[in-house]
Amino acid sequence: MSSHRHDIDDLVRRARQGQARAVARLISLVEDGAPDLRALAAALARYTGRAQVVGITGAPGVGKSSTVSVLITALRAAGKKIGVLAVDPSSPFSGGALLGDRVRMQDHATDSGVFIRSMATRGHLGGTAWATPQAVRVLDAAGCDVVVVETVGVGQSEVEVLALADTVVVLLAPGMGDGIQAVKAGILEVADVFVVNKADREGSDQTVRDLKYMISLGRRGTAGPSWRPPIVRTVATRSEGIEDLLTAIEEHQRWALRHGELDARRQRRAEAEVEAIALAQLRAKLGDLRRGSALSGLAKRVVVGELDVYRAADELIAELGA
Amino acid sequence: MSSHRHDIDDLVRRARQGQARAVARLISLVEDGAPDLRALAAALARYTGRAQVVGITGAPGVGKSSTVSVLITALRAAGKKIGVLAVDPSSPFSGGALLGDRVRMQDHATDSGVFIRSMATRGHLGGTAWATPQAVRVLDAAGCDVVVVETVGVGQSEVEVLALADTVVVLLAPGMGDGIQAVKAGILEVADVFVVNKADREGSDQTVRDLKYMISLGRRGTAGPSWRPPIVRTVATRSEGIEDLLTAIEEHQRWALRHGELDARRQRRAEAEVEAIALAQLRAKLGDLRRGSALSGLAKRVVVGELDVYRAADELIAELGA
Repeated sequence: MSSHRHDIDDLVRRARQGQARAVARLISLVEDGAPDLRALAAALARYTGRAQVVGITGAPGVGKSSTVSVLITALRAAGKKIGVLAVDPSSPFSGGALLGDRVRMQDHATDSGVFIRSMATRGHLGGTAWATPQAVRVLDAAGCDVVVVETVGVGQSEVEVLALADTVVVLLAPGMGDGIQAVKAGILEVADVFVVNKADREGSDQTVRDLKYMISLGRRGTAGPSWRPPIVRTVATRSEGIEDLLTAIEEHQRWALRHGELDARRQRRAEAEVEAIALAQLRAKLGDLRRGSALSGLAKRVVVGELDVYRAADELIAELGA
Repeated sequence: MSSHRHDIDDLVRRARQGQARAVARLISLVEDGAPDLRALAAALARYTGRAQVVGITGAPGVGKSSTVSVLITALRAAGKKIGVLAVDPSSPFSGGALLGDRVRMQDHATDSGVFIRSMATRGHLGGTAWATPQAVRVLDAAGCDVVVVETVGVGQSEVEVLALADTVVVLLAPGMGDGIQAVKAGILEVADVFVVNKADREGSDQTVRDLKYMISLGRRGTAGPSWRPPIVRTVATRSEGIEDLLTAIEEHQRWALRHGELDARRQRRAEAEVEAIALAQLRAKLGDLRRGSALSGLAKRVVVGELDVYRAADELIAELGA
């Protein structure tokens, strides 16, 4: 264990010096759910909390990856160090997309100010919702000013991943089936900034109108300081509207900082993460008891009517403390 | 609490005397996830383990409820006391079916040797998968010789409910879309007895052939004493084939008893139930900590980098023991 601890400290030191291979190795440890995660979390703690986390989501085909790519270019031009986590199997970062996209991504591959990483869910407990917060922490500690988390906007675990972000950007494009209906409702509700990409296409005015109507409904009667999500039109493949998107993200960040929303989100995020880890630890301990004889012995006594299920559960929980 | 305990003991006493209202009241407590469940489990423990639990499943329209109804008639003729739990919102027991079915069920409604109850999932932790084992325990303690659990064969929680049963009966009917493909694969695998209902209809020979082929594939290479699920043809609306079904169920019971499979299933069932209750208790304790200040205080320290998430989780778990 102490040698592990030493390795981890060394990796964290090299990651903080900007060595891409050390960053990649640390994120792999996170993805693998390595036993070292505990030491890693301890080594990272004091270096985290600086990065601005931007979540970008949208259905396949709306142009998420193109948007992320031009966003990286714009942020690099502003001198920022960027991390990208693509929690999306169809992302070009995961090697699953069109050649054109992949070539575009390679512009950044040789830039030492950009870490790009696709997050695979290797089936361990909690999947991406579990691993992504810790991967964000790695990029944060490695000195990234902005960490972009790209997800495909479907499924509950996606919403959980988005809950990570300081600012959530939801992308839509005209002519995608039912328009805004195509996006999972829970995701529209967490949007801080809307992007209508492919804004040169027919139907984009309608998509903007639909969004405006939806936003007007959603905000009615909300108490307290309220953020009204702006709608930005972009044509990511031609880099159009990207400055507007950056401005919208920055304005949201300033608003969130001023109104305590940034602190509130980071607090909720830490609470959720601590609770999830505690529950996973308890579940793992119960699993150890299942492999041992404790549970089996208790269940035998339940079967013969000697013990009821609740008292058996109490005894099982008591075993955890031992 | 002690007066609750007294009420529970009194209800259990009356349920054991065969009072239907006491049985119904106890099952309602189970469905509501009442705090009394702990006392109830304690009061029931010594009276349970006698009933034979038969799970019956199949897609909507295959004739599950008609089959259950004629099965009840046959078991009553054999002098058995019967409990039925319909974990199926479309069941006539739940009031959601055709008038003809409902009338047929009323034959049993006035029979004091039959308890019929639909299980609603009222949204509490674990839903039917959580409540059904305890409702089975109530019917078992009330002296039922056979408890039939009827489920609509879709979804993971259905498979969990079926894992309760000593014998699993899977119903199919000819001409139901893709035949045996229409049934969730996991359910075909847990079948102990297959029923092809509506066997007078065109296509029933094909359904039986498909099943035989599937069974021959599934059993190839299985080590140890192996049960080959029989296929029974029925026309439940005319009570045809019901004696064959009863015989198949009894043969499976005898086989399971002789080969230790019955004990093994009851052991696995008790293990799963105890583990689920223990995890729910731990989750509830974590929830209490969330409402209190413990989690919030730990998360604050995580946000400022004073504590890492794993050590925070450790401290949270330590709070559980306090």
